[in-house]
Amino acid sequence: MSLIVQKYGGTSVGTVERIQAVAERAGKAVQEGHQLVVVVSAMSGETDRLLNLAKAIQNPPAPRELDAMLSTGEQVTIGLLAMALQARGIDAVSFTGGQIPITTDSAYNKARIVDIDATRVRQELERGKVAVVAGFQGIDAGGSITTLGRGGSDTTAVALAAALKADECQIYTDVDGVYTTDPRIVPEARRLDRITYEEMLEMASLGAKVLQIRSVEFASKYQVTLRVLSSFMDGPGTLITTEENIMEAALISGVTLNRDEAKLTIVGVPDRPGIASHILGPVADANIEVDMIVQNSGADGSADFTFTVHRNDYERALGICQATSAELKARKVEGDRKIVKVSIVGVGMRSHAGIASRMFRALAAEGVNLQMISTSEIKISVVVDEKYGELAVRILHSEFGLAGASTAA
Amino acid sequence: MSLIVQKYGGTSVGTVERIQAVAERAGKAVQEGHQLVVVVSAMSGETDRLLNLAKAIQNPPAPRELDAMLSTGEQVTIGLLAMALQARGIDAVSFTGGQIPITTDSAYNKARIVDIDATRVRQELERGKVAVVAGFQGIDAGGSITTLGRGGSDTTAVALAAALKADECQIYTDVDGVYTTDPRIVPEARRLDRITYEEMLEMASLGAKVLQIRSVEFASKYQVTLRVLSSFMDGPGTLITTEENIMEAALISGVTLNRDEAKLTIVGVPDRPGIASHILGPVADANIEVDMIVQNSGADGSADFTFTVHRNDYERALGICQATSAELKARKVEGDRKIVKVSIVGVGMRSHAGIASRMFRALAAEGVNLQMISTSEIKISVVVDEKYGELAVRILHSEFGLAGASTAA
Repeated sequence: MSLIVQKYGGTSVGTVERIQAVAERAGKAVQEGHQLVVVVSAMSGETDRLLNLAKAIQNPPAPRELDAMLSTGEQVTIGLLAMALQARGIDAVSFTGGQIPITTDSAYNKARIVDIDATRVRQELERGKVAVVAGFQGIDAGGSITTLGRGGSDTTAVALAAALKADECQIYTDVDGVYTTDPRIVPEARRLDRITYEEMLEMASLGAKVLQIRSVEFASKYQVTLRVLSSFMDGPGTLITTEENIMEAALISGVTLNRDEAKLTIVGVPDRPGIASHILGPVADANIEVDMIVQNSGADGSADFTFTVHRNDYERALGICQATSAELKARKVEGDRKIVKVSIVGVGMRSHAGIASRMFRALAAEGVNLQMISTSEIKISVVVDEKYGELAVRILHSEFGLAGASTAA
Repeated sequence: MSLIVQKYGGTSVGTVERIQAVAERAGKAVQEGHQLVVVVSAMSGETDRLLNLAKAIQNPPAPRELDAMLSTGEQVTIGLLAMALQARGIDAVSFTGGQIPITTDSAYNKARIVDIDATRVRQELERGKVAVVAGFQGIDAGGSITTLGRGGSDTTAVALAAALKADECQIYTDVDGVYTTDPRIVPEARRLDRITYEEMLEMASLGAKVLQIRSVEFASKYQVTLRVLSSFMDGPGTLITTEENIMEAALISGVTLNRDEAKLTIVGVPDRPGIASHILGPVADANIEVDMIVQNSGADGSADFTFTVHRNDYERALGICQATSAELKARKVEGDRKIVKVSIVGVGMRSHAGIASRMFRALAAEGVNLQMISTSEIKISVVVDEKYGELAVRILHSEFGLAGASTAA
């Protein structure tokens, strides 16, 4: 007998029929003799409906009051799923975040979990009941309702799994696992049987939107074994675990494409210490997140300074750079929205040299020009012209042999 | 400075615009220097939407889980109203039933309030905030969410007013007060400035659906001064208070018409002790509520036994009576769905003799035949043929001089 935490997102509980299907699937785990906790999101569309209602009254809405409202979406789903389980003869009991309780700080709309008291949930499990838990929410020390921000239900599931020392935390979603790359770009893309937390974090932050980053960080920190599965079809999904649990790590696990970035260059800035912070300080002050940064020093004592930001922040960042450029008496500011970032991710990089040069050679052979390069321990990213993005992904997917049979589970 | 509890029903908070209007109205009370608690229902239609969703999953829905779901309707409204107040610069804070806490028993779907701890609400009031409270809900000793049943928001408001020793509990609704009778039947019907709890209870139970009966009982028990007002127009409404607070009670306060009843007669039952319980026992066992009961003894040692039930229960009651009739070897069973009950209500009856005969004489003068008569301390009811119902109301409204100028406030 194992203790399993299952989590179903908004699409998986979006209609009465889908809630019935979730109850069927959860029922199977119970029949197999497992203790079961099910964490659910609001029915798809409900959170947006509530948010729009709030904004029609006050914009931006008062954070504490918004959380009191938004948390009702999950509260409806837990009631419905508990009913669907009971209708199948499976004893089930629902919990709001406050009833568990999941204690958070008071940062409404983006609260962080401070503590989970799993006593009551464990009691109900020992009585043979399924615990149905509202994701995305908690209460603060004063008893006010808080929410964890978008995607917070994943975090609830992982945090509960950690508190209960669950054997596995299963995240049900609308894809059947984590893929080597986007199958819409590369039809031969392959589902990974296993992947490490670190790789998943790099893939997630690069745009593979299967899991919320915070939940993977949480799982890594508390060594919670995660599994990403489809709510709509059967299959083993992808297991996300520690490197020790993966017998033979692949060289490269995946190739990702991020289309959300834009590039800014200040040309001809004085090449002296402190110049980077002089340029990036005002950008950070405007709450604009900077991703890649490259500085090239010229021979004439001046340098070119390039960085990327989210495309939504491009116009604002451009304005800030122009002001900084004038201050520094730089030559000019150039900007480019039509770029993408292509990355390869894999823990195998740690023990294998020459991955980067193999990557650059493969791209060069097909005439793809690299505008920026950035590397980390298990990731290499390049910025290329938008029009080469998909081609670059296909080249790298093929170069590192990612297509073909699934890795051994 | 007074402490006022205001309650707004589902129609009054049914749209974003109406919630803004409620915030305007509540804001006026704050500007006048009052401490203010606002109790709200779910937006109109929301409770039914949730109920239908639940029934699509499980019918009947599991009571505890249904309450977890249904309580979200009010939780959304408190968030929205608190935002609308804050948008007007009025400091406001929302409370679910559990956050106050309002403690109830565990009779899900029809819970009764056991205790209200008004400490936190009082603290917020003393900080100059408006407390916005979800009606209709509480929590039981185990921390599960409960609901008080339909119309329970009135009870929440009155109970909170009692716990806070509020100066007045104002119930905002879609009518501007309590009338001497239904203005659709008698256009000259007059709004009452004041009425006693007892009269209001009789009027409410007879079909004047302005206030939930339990809330009036509660108000009477704890001497909470109630006021029924319109959310859509200004006006003093109707004050519901103790008899001592009404200087000169009117003889009759109102005339009511109840179209929901049906009549059953078992003809020729043996006239012996215990016959009433023999007939009504099986009816009660079938959960059918009996209203009026009349027994006429004949000269031949047999009697006719007549009683009324809700029209929805008529068919079932008829079947039960036929079985009882066969057992008792009674002559036959007669039934009539086409009857109505007309009543006059007034505390003045206590000190004035001859009201009943004046009522009967007035009806007889217009040819209205009385089928059953029943009297209580402050009420006289008669059953008449359905077709005479509205005529009877007009006759009595005129006979007891209920039209004309409003009573002195």
